[in-house]
Formats: sequence, C-alpha cells, structure tokens
Amino acid sequence: MSAGLRQLYRPARAINTHVLRISRSYAIEAKPKFFADEPAAPHIKTSKLPGPKSKELSAEMNVWQDARAHQLVADYSTSKGNYLQDADGNKFLDVFAQIASIAIGYNHPALLSLAKSNEFIQLAMNRPALGSFPPSNWNKILSESLLKVAPKGLDQLFTMMCGSCANEGALKAAFFAYRQRERGGQLAEFSSEELKSCMNNQKPGSPDLVAMSFKSGFHGRLFGSLSLTRSKAIHKVDVPAFDWPAVEFPQLKYPLEEFEAENKKSEAASLQGVEETILEWKKKGRKVAALILEPIQSEGGDFHASPAFFRALRTLTLKHQVYMIVDEVQTGVGATGHFWAHEAWNLDTPPDFVTFSKKMQAAGFYHAPETRPVQPYRNYNTWMGAPTEILKARTIIEVVERENLISHVKDVGRYLYSGLETLSKSVGKGKINNLRGKETGTFLAFDSPTSKSRDEFINRMKLAGVNMGGCGEQTVRLRPMLVFGKAHAQIMLETAEKVLKDL
Amino acid sequence: MSAGLRQLYRPARAINTHVLRISRSYAIEAKPKFFADEPAAPHIKTSKLPGPKSKELSAEMNVWQDARAHQLVADYSTSKGNYLQDADGNKFLDVFAQIASIAIGYNHPALLSLAKSNEFIQLAMNRPALGSFPPSNWNKILSESLLKVAPKGLDQLFTMMCGSCANEGALKAAFFAYRQRERGGQLAEFSSEELKSCMNNQKPGSPDLVAMSFKSGFHGRLFGSLSLTRSKAIHKVDVPAFDWPAVEFPQLKYPLEEFEAENKKSEAASLQGVEETILEWKKKGRKVAALILEPIQSEGGDFHASPAFFRALRTLTLKHQVYMIVDEVQTGVGATGHFWAHEAWNLDTPPDFVTFSKKMQAAGFYHAPETRPVQPYRNYNTWMGAPTEILKARTIIEVVERENLISHVKDVGRYLYSGLETLSKSVGKGKINNLRGKETGTFLAFDSPTSKSRDEFINRMKLAGVNMGGCGEQTVRLRPMLVFGKAHAQIMLETAEKVLKDL
Repeated sequence: MSAGLRQLYRPARAINTHVLRISRSYAIEAKPKFFADEPAAPHIKTSKLPGPKSKELSAEMNVWQDARAHQLVADYSTSKGNYLQDADGNKFLDVFAQIASIAIGYNHPALLSLAKSNEFIQLAMNRPALGSFPPSNWNKILSESLLKVAPKGLDQLFTMMCGSCANEGALKAAFFAYRQRERGGQLAEFSSEELKSCMNNQKPGSPDLVAMSFKSGFHGRLFGSLSLTRSKAIHKVDVPAFDWPAVEFPQLKYPLEEFEAENKKSEAASLQGVEETILEWKKKGRKVAALILEPIQSEGGDFHASPAFFRALRTLTLKHQVYMIVDEVQTGVGATGHFWAHEAWNLDTPPDFVTFSKKMQAAGFYHAPETRPVQPYRNYNTWMGAPTEILKARTIIEVVERENLISHVKDVGRYLYSGLETLSKSVGKGKINNLRGKETGTFLAFDSPTSKSRDEFINRMKLAGVNMGGCGEQTVRLRPMLVFGKAHAQIMLETAEKVLKDL
Repeated sequence: MSAGLRQLYRPARAINTHVLRISRSYAIEAKPKFFADEPAAPHIKTSKLPGPKSKELSAEMNVWQDARAHQLVADYSTSKGNYLQDADGNKFLDVFAQIASIAIGYNHPALLSLAKSNEFIQLAMNRPALGSFPPSNWNKILSESLLKVAPKGLDQLFTMMCGSCANEGALKAAFFAYRQRERGGQLAEFSSEELKSCMNNQKPGSPDLVAMSFKSGFHGRLFGSLSLTRSKAIHKVDVPAFDWPAVEFPQLKYPLEEFEAENKKSEAASLQGVEETILEWKKKGRKVAALILEPIQSEGGDFHASPAFFRALRTLTLKHQVYMIVDEVQTGVGATGHFWAHEAWNLDTPPDFVTFSKKMQAAGFYHAPETRPVQPYRNYNTWMGAPTEILKARTIIEVVERENLISHVKDVGRYLYSGLETLSKSVGKGKINNLRGKETGTFLAFDSPTSKSRDEFINRMKLAGVNMGGCGEQTVRLRPMLVFGKAHAQIMLETAEKVLKDL
C-alpha cells in the first residue's frame, strides 16, 4: 500500500473497530451509517465467478432467453444495504446498484414496511388505468412523492413505465407543443389535411420535425429514443432510425484546472455545433423542435460539461425556440450531490422537460403548463405509470430527506474522489486516467488505458468482492447507492489499489 | 321488457334467489360464481356522475396533469370482483375492466395473498436489472408463469414494461433477424460501414426496412409503435412517423352467415393488398421485414376476420419472408375463449412473435429460437420487465387454470352474445348493429348508429351503474373480466335494454 493511501484509509478488516481521522473532512464512520446489519466486508466463497450454482441457474434461463448479459445471479432475500449476495452465497459490495437503479439499499426497512401496507397491496393488486380511473388517494400520493421533488419551474407531471418511455413521452409533448405554436397557438385547430395525412404517416400531419441529441448520448432503446441514442453501434445497428442530427458533446480534459482554456474551447465548439445544426437543418426545411441531453453522459462514457456550458445551451435553445429535454434517468435522485443534477447549473429559465426513472423506480417527465397539450388523450396510454413504483418513490424520497442523503452523498463523493486521486498516483501512472466528477457527488468515473484493461479491472474487482460497472469504451463508472458510506468507499479503494497494482 | 328478453333473464333484483333455466346451455348462476362477497347489483348513490367527491379529486389532479380523460375516480380498497366502487361510494358493474386490463377481478384473494408473500415483497422492493442480475428463483418463477402459457412453437421469451414496449421489442427482434438473414445468416458479421453509418442514423446500418400494419390497427403510442398504429388521428397527429405502409383490414358485414360471399371477397381483397404492398415496396427498394396485426382490431373499432384469413396471411408472410407479429396485448389471456386468440386460427406454422400486456399485467413477447439475436445486448435494457407484474401473472394463470376460466368465458360469451342478439331485435331496429364476436368468448362488440349515440349509450349505462367502453367511431366494446358470469351479463343486458329503449 502506498504511503498516500495508507494515510487515507485502513484495511477493510479494521474498519469496524477504528475511526480514522485523516483530516476533519475525511473522517470515516466506524460502522456503516444506515444499515447496522449489513456485512462488514465482501466475502467471496467460490473459487470462480460465476460460482457453480449461479452458472447452473444461468444455463437454465439461457434455454428461453439469452443469458450472455448475466453478470451474476442474485439472491435478493439475503442481500442487504450496499451488499448484493449471489446464488452461491458470495457477498459483493455493490458499486453498480442494478445499473444505477437502487437508491437506498437492498431490503431497506422503510420499503419492506411499505410493502406490507394496505395502501401498497391494494394498488399493486388492482392496477388502475391511471389516466381514466385514478385512485381516490392519487393526488395525495403524488403530492407526497413525485410532485414534492418537482424540479423548479416544472409543476406538471406525466408518469410512464420506463426511462425510454419517459424520454419518448417528453419528446412527443415537445412535438405537440412545437406544432401547436407553429399552427398559431392554443386556439388553433388541426387542418383536415393534417388529420388525414397523419393516418398515412405523411406530412403535414406526421411532420418532419427533428429532435437533436449529442454524440455519445444514451436515451433509451425504443424506436424514438434509440434514434436519439448515440452511445454504441451494437445498440443501434439494424434498427430503422429517424433522420435526426447529433452534435459533438464537449470533450473535457482532466484535471480540469490544467486544461481550462482547452476545455472552454471544446465547449464553445460544441455550442457552435448546436447552433449551426439548428440553422442548417432549418435551411433544409427541417426544423429542430427539441434537444435532449444528459447532465452527465452516462452509458456513453461518463462525459461531463460545465454548468456554464449548460447555461449557454439553455440560452441557445430559447433563442431558437427549441425545447430542451434534460434526461435525468441516470443522474436524478441525488447521486450527483443534488436531487436533480441540473440544479447545479443555476439556470435562469428552467428546462422544458426533465425525465426520470431508475433510482426513482417510477418513470416519467416533468414539464411546465405551457407544454400541456391543448387536446385531451394526446399523451395517454392504458397504465400511465405503475402505482407500485410511485409508492416506492415516495418512500425513497422520504428516506432521502430524513437521512439527509444528498449532503451525505456530497461528503462521501469528496472522500471517494480524493481517494481515487491519491490512488491514481500510487498505483503507477496511466492506470487511472481522466478522473472526473469532483463536483458531482459519488457520480464518479475514470478511464482505464484500454477497453480490455477496463474489463479486466472490473472482472478482478468482482473476484475481490466489489461489483462495478463500465461505460463507454474504456471507462469505469462508480454508481453506488445513496447509502454508500466512507467505510464502503475505503473497501472499494483498497480493493482497487490491490487490483490495479497487479494489473 | 320484451318477451324475448324476459325469456332469457330475470330482473337484477331477482338474481340472488332464482336459478333460471332458459335452456341447458343458458342456465344462469344464482350467485356470482367467483366472488361470494361482491355486490349483488350496481348501486348509484349520487344524482350526477361524477359525484361531488370524484369531481373535487379530479380537479385537484388537474392542477398537475390533464384530467379530461378521467372517467371516474376509483376507490380500489372497496372495489370487489366485477364491481368497481368510485370515490363517492357508487358501485359499478365493470364491463371495461381498466381498458381490458383486469383478468380475475378486483381484490382477488389469491392476488392479495401473493402480495403478502416474502417472495413478492423481496422482488418488489429490490428491483433487479433482470438481464444482468436476475434473481436466483427467476427460472422457477418464469416456468410457473409466462413460460407455462407460451404459445405453441414459441419457447423464447423477452419481458418488457408495457404493451407498446412489447410491440417495439418484437419489432426490433424482427429487424435484427431480417438483416442477419440478408447479411448471410448466423455467422455473418456487421460490416464496418454498417457500424459506422448507424451512429448517424443512416443506411446501411440504420436500414430503410419497413414494418407493415393494418388500417384501424392499434399497436401503441411510442414512436415505433405509433408509426404502426392507424386507429385515430388524435393518436398520431404532430408526431414524426416512419414512412411505413398500412393495408386495408377486412370489412366484415354482419350477421356473418348472411354476408358470406361478400366477406370472403373483402378478406381476399385485404390479402391481395398485403401481397401487392410487399411487392410494390420491394420495387421501391424498401423491403417489408415485418407485419404486425391484432387477432381482433380492438382500439380501432373491434374488427374481426376469419381464421381462414389469418391462415392465408401466415402463408403470405412465409412466402415473402416477412416476420409475422401477432399483437395479443388486448386479446390475450382468455377473453376470446382461448388463452391466446390466435389459437383459434389453427396455424400450421406459428407466428414469429406474439406480444402481450394488459390482463397479463406483465408485458413482453414470445418468439422462436431462430429470431434470437446472434449477439448479446441487442434486445436489452435496464429492467427488462417488472418482477411484481410477472408474479401477478403467475397467480392469474394459476387462477385461470384452477377455475377453468377459459371454458367459463366461452360459456358466458355464448350467453351474452345470444342476449345481445335478442336485445337487438327487442329494442328496435338499428340500435344494435353489427353485433360481433359469436366465436370469441366475451370479446364482443356492436355498433351504435352514430358516434354521438354510442357516447350517449355509454354515458347512460354508467348512470345506471354499468361501466362500459367504446372503441373506433361508433362501437361499444364489451371487455369484462374473466370472472364475469351470466348473472353479471343479465344485469348488463337488462340495463342496456332500458337504456336503449329510452335512447
């Protein structure tokens, strides 16, 4: 262990007995803060991963569904807090959290208690068509859950079933509003030509309006959202796509303070790309109605940009009357040190749409009253979201507030970032590159030298009991739960040090 | 009451004390067969609908979401079996069932007991990313649920979040398989040009392959599924669509036995339209990769076609190597007197894909091993379905089997059809037109003279305590639950008679 790291933390076996004080700001909790009964450390029992039982179960499932994407077969009944247990009894510290989709830990008592409530049972077992037969307690439930955390300026809500659906729902609402404006405002009616031509998927009823996204962006895998997604070819190839443009996202270099001028230039170039694309496509007769973006491009490789960049983007979208959709499916619900990542931008005018899913369990989008469709039944479907997931969202939001998880995440994020920074020096040059996320809570990432070494790193971390995720070409992304503490960070850092020294 | 109807049933107040024997096949149960404790009849307490409490609750919700599609605000805690109670305490006999999405009744004891099981609680509160971290009991659960009812010949399963997602998932799989075949079969690899061009949404990586659907068809409201949907302009207008063709669906006339020759002609014309469209588009360089269809076009107006038509369609799709996707989102899970409506066709070769949602609670699609993508991660997303809904599907399937609900539906369907037939004569000519569904269980429909009179009929039925749904321009669709019995049918018929005589 390097001197630097030794200063920063103690080995895992010691964390239950010592409170280390490296400095005031980096005090480590002696015990996990939120789950008194979670394991003290990872424990791998099997000589290989997947273990024999997991392997057998995967093979059984592979009979009816491709199991090649299985990372492990989990036992959710014995998983606890930050620890995921597999079918062979191996216990992993989970820093990937079901692809960034677990907020407050496995088997959180507040969620287990929700499950036993009559309110939950009745809505789970009598699934309503929410748009037509909403439950009598619906307004109350929503007021205590999703509406309570509505992003500033966006007091309208539409719930859907998944992240892709949420993005497509927002995009549809953007197209509705754009055409309504073009048509002449709130009172303008559809022309008979519009109503007729749309039945044949032709103009003007099916407009050739355009939605724009950023290269490396990921917005889902359904037909509209996949046309916006630009992460990897394997996500897109062979699927018909809308002819919509994508623009270069800023390519920041790290550490940020060393590359200030270059990074500004990169952001300016991206902004210029956005404006030029809007103008070019307009010239072709195809207007850009919406721009969708992630506050941090996650699936595509954890690419960040500065608050100033996003503020400029908002100015640009307003100037050209392009609706701005902020896709917070992965960044939302606290992991960046804000409830919504876009809060960090301090926008003067809120985005037009903010979409969510994953950690929220419930999916959907927020918007402003101006983008509410003039006619009913336009954004509508049978279920319009899942009450079970919205009730879970309520509990998650309550726990986030009660336990001050946002400030906890900020605190742990700083600790984790600092640990990775130290590590990047101690393990030898080039093993941890482009460490990013200094200001974004535990939403951190770094690059391995190659795609292969990244995969090898993740694989060895897992063998050592730490479950992590990759993204983009050669990036390791940290996607811990909000209840991930410094003690967990310490285990992860120590394990990473061992693995990286060997690699 | 007409002599005909009087023969067929007794007034609702009598149903608890008498067993009527009109004929052997039309014996009415004295009591509801499945819910001993459900109300004996509808009961409307408020002088207007919606009642004051419901109105107030809708207004509260309208602040954050358009409430114009609300039909009633429901109290699911007091709803029971076939009876839906609203916020004002009105009890409706529910013949719409959350847009055809409730299979075995409100607050079914088997579902309530599922909700209390540890298995349910753990999977509900620890939501897995099923494609990468499946639960150790997943194979067992699926074997006892969705796999158990897999359509003949289709032993592969992909679960998703909603009906639209299910259709788009199947469509993606169809495009993958089509391009893989064009590329040269299982071993053929992507060209670098494909991998590059798809990142820009351009050919050849984003192919200009075509998916075909039928006019009046409904397949969902996301961007791909909405391009296939041809139900109503309000569903489609202002949303960019793929340039894909739609073909005329057969326009059958009723009663079928009177219009045999004409109907055959209409079906032949539709088949010719399908083949011509495939050939025409091929000439334009745009190959039809998939044809999607509903066994009964539901949302678009409850349009039927004969088993012979669908068999011919299967022959045509095989001849032209077009994948056939059967959208059983609304027809699946028993309501047509078969578990899957397409079983009635007796196909020699099964369809390529069968999609489901609604009554199943879980959504997804079945397919054959040949359409399993060669590469992993192609049909993949974070959640890949909801374990809560799949567990509910298991219970629903168990109850369907245990209670012989399919044969019950057939029996009640015959009774209901016969009652409507009698009614159509007794209430005066032209009020019940094109009664259809003689062979399709309780999946029945008829036309009102106009769109306005249809809406008025549904409205007055509701005021009399029977909740019903419309579809298409002027159609009334019956979408009762599988536990709907003859006693319920009797109430519905009697109420309809009163309403129609007044109308």
